[in-house]
Amino acid sequence: MRIRETKPTLAVSVLTLLVLFALAFSPVHAQQPDPLPSWAEGPTKSAIIQFVQSVTEKGGKDYVPPEDRIATFDNDGTLWVEQPMYTQLLFAFDRVKELAPHHPEWKTKQPFKALLEGDMKTVGASGMKGVMEIVMATHSGMTATEFEKTVTNWLATHKQPRFKRLYTECVYQPQLEFLTYLRANGFKAFIVSGGGIQFMRPWTEKVYGIPPEQVVGSSVVTEFQIKDGKPVLVRMPKIDFINDKAGKPVGIYEHIGRRPILAFGNADADMQMIQYTKAGKGRRLGLFVHHTDADREYAYDRDSHVGKLDKVLDIAAENNWIVVDMKRDWKQIFPQ
Amino acid sequence: MRIRETKPTLAVSVLTLLVLFALAFSPVHAQQPDPLPSWAEGPTKSAIIQFVQSVTEKGGKDYVPPEDRIATFDNDGTLWVEQPMYTQLLFAFDRVKELAPHHPEWKTKQPFKALLEGDMKTVGASGMKGVMEIVMATHSGMTATEFEKTVTNWLATHKQPRFKRLYTECVYQPQLEFLTYLRANGFKAFIVSGGGIQFMRPWTEKVYGIPPEQVVGSSVVTEFQIKDGKPVLVRMPKIDFINDKAGKPVGIYEHIGRRPILAFGNADADMQMIQYTKAGKGRRLGLFVHHTDADREYAYDRDSHVGKLDKVLDIAAENNWIVVDMKRDWKQIFPQ
Repeated sequence: MRIRETKPTLAVSVLTLLVLFALAFSPVHAQQPDPLPSWAEGPTKSAIIQFVQSVTEKGGKDYVPPEDRIATFDNDGTLWVEQPMYTQLLFAFDRVKELAPHHPEWKTKQPFKALLEGDMKTVGASGMKGVMEIVMATHSGMTATEFEKTVTNWLATHKQPRFKRLYTECVYQPQLEFLTYLRANGFKAFIVSGGGIQFMRPWTEKVYGIPPEQVVGSSVVTEFQIKDGKPVLVRMPKIDFINDKAGKPVGIYEHIGRRPILAFGNADADMQMIQYTKAGKGRRLGLFVHHTDADREYAYDRDSHVGKLDKVLDIAAENNWIVVDMKRDWKQIFPQ
Repeated sequence: MRIRETKPTLAVSVLTLLVLFALAFSPVHAQQPDPLPSWAEGPTKSAIIQFVQSVTEKGGKDYVPPEDRIATFDNDGTLWVEQPMYTQLLFAFDRVKELAPHHPEWKTKQPFKALLEGDMKTVGASGMKGVMEIVMATHSGMTATEFEKTVTNWLATHKQPRFKRLYTECVYQPQLEFLTYLRANGFKAFIVSGGGIQFMRPWTEKVYGIPPEQVVGSSVVTEFQIKDGKPVLVRMPKIDFINDKAGKPVGIYEHIGRRPILAFGNADADMQMIQYTKAGKGRRLGLFVHHTDADREYAYDRDSHVGKLDKVLDIAAENNWIVVDMKRDWKQIFPQ
């Protein structure tokens, strides 16, 4: 009798143990936390979640195998702040000031002279040609390793003027959540930016979780040389590729070799990337950030000198592109 | 007393259960199968295994975190057969024959005339200029999608003349095992080839487990166009980048953005990639396949018209580059 009383007790213990093991190794279905807590409830958030659910639902009509779950994100104005000016251009301006002692000729040569005198009107008047001279003077003539160190040091020591945060802290919290959500659903996310590819790579893994090999951008010609017996890569003062506008689908073709199923931009310059993405077969998602929040970030679109969003606003609806209204759709802008 | 007899029995059962669970979820240390069964025992295989063990041993002096475990492999002659001629060139020759009915002008235009008449001596005499004309005529003037289909169809229907296997079956079994071994140890393997990037991408994932975005190669200029209202990428008859010799480290910098810790080639044209790889800090491995097996594959090196291996043989030892002797080091050449 006493044995019979004992056996069930121990059997229950074994059962409990098994249940605990089973729980420890099984996915939790009930009460999943919101994967996008900084996104306000509404049609935008719903569209994103419905898209991700539909392409990951095995056996569903929109199912996409994990290897084809490619997502591309513009960087300036889509993942981080691009006002009052592209961060990379502010970097270039700063570098001219830092390098000026080694370049006495800049005292008389435009647009360097104007930049050193703080005459930004003249710098602006020098147009794309002048700006490219500044970019070339600060982005070439050094090894790849030296350039990487310079970028890393600058970003670690300079702050965005309005928010008084490092530029790498002026990234959008809702997008960090979106990237994490995509990764958790088997997506591979790439940056596809008009910005310099090697200006982004030193920090994208730490900040966005996007490794260097998943960053596509504009580039200068680079040469392999043996210097003092050591093999080095030297950055040359010549544009190799401009990864902007119609260049973005080309950059995607060259670097990724697959058509994205989701693309996210914020400007007319991202339109071709979204068109290329949406032209593929099956379900696709194209999104644009619309900067509508002057209080928490910036408000700009059709007339902006950076991130001009004009034509997209006219034709987004007819193309089923989602325009994310920053003020309405994002509960929080920056990470805390 | 009887309870005391029973309890230990049940306790033993619980213990057995726990041990079984523990075994089911723990790595097996004893009697691990050989990860490289097609590699003959000897110094080459030992060097590979010691390298992988040293860079993956947590707390070891040579430890490399997973994100930096980048390995790059040449393709022609390193992962698949490159004799009697580069597969891509055989593809181009075949395409000229297939496209000839649409190009009556080729009947009188060299080197097309010679190629169509089977006069390979004249084709060869046309040199790099003539060969590039053939490559351009067959690799441009179509959309990216059309080119991908053409490559896929050709590879599915043409066989390597000596081995009577599809070209994608003329891949080296020891290298397939090496790639699997590297992946199992947290490496990310890339192809870095002088061959056309878009000629490789349609099949590298299926054949090598290397996805398109991890393939680096030579390219033609590509343009984004809207054709009949549809966005397409059109391949233009102009070289964009030659990913060979000193171009390989540049291709690695542009596409990967990290320096490999392991690189594998088979020709002098891979030397700069190995130099660049080995010039990084910490433990690095550089390897070359030496084709020494005329019976099972081919034997060629210093005087070969493809995959010339000359200077490397002279300076490999002083640079600690490993020269893999195909005949001695590979027990099996192709998959069964």
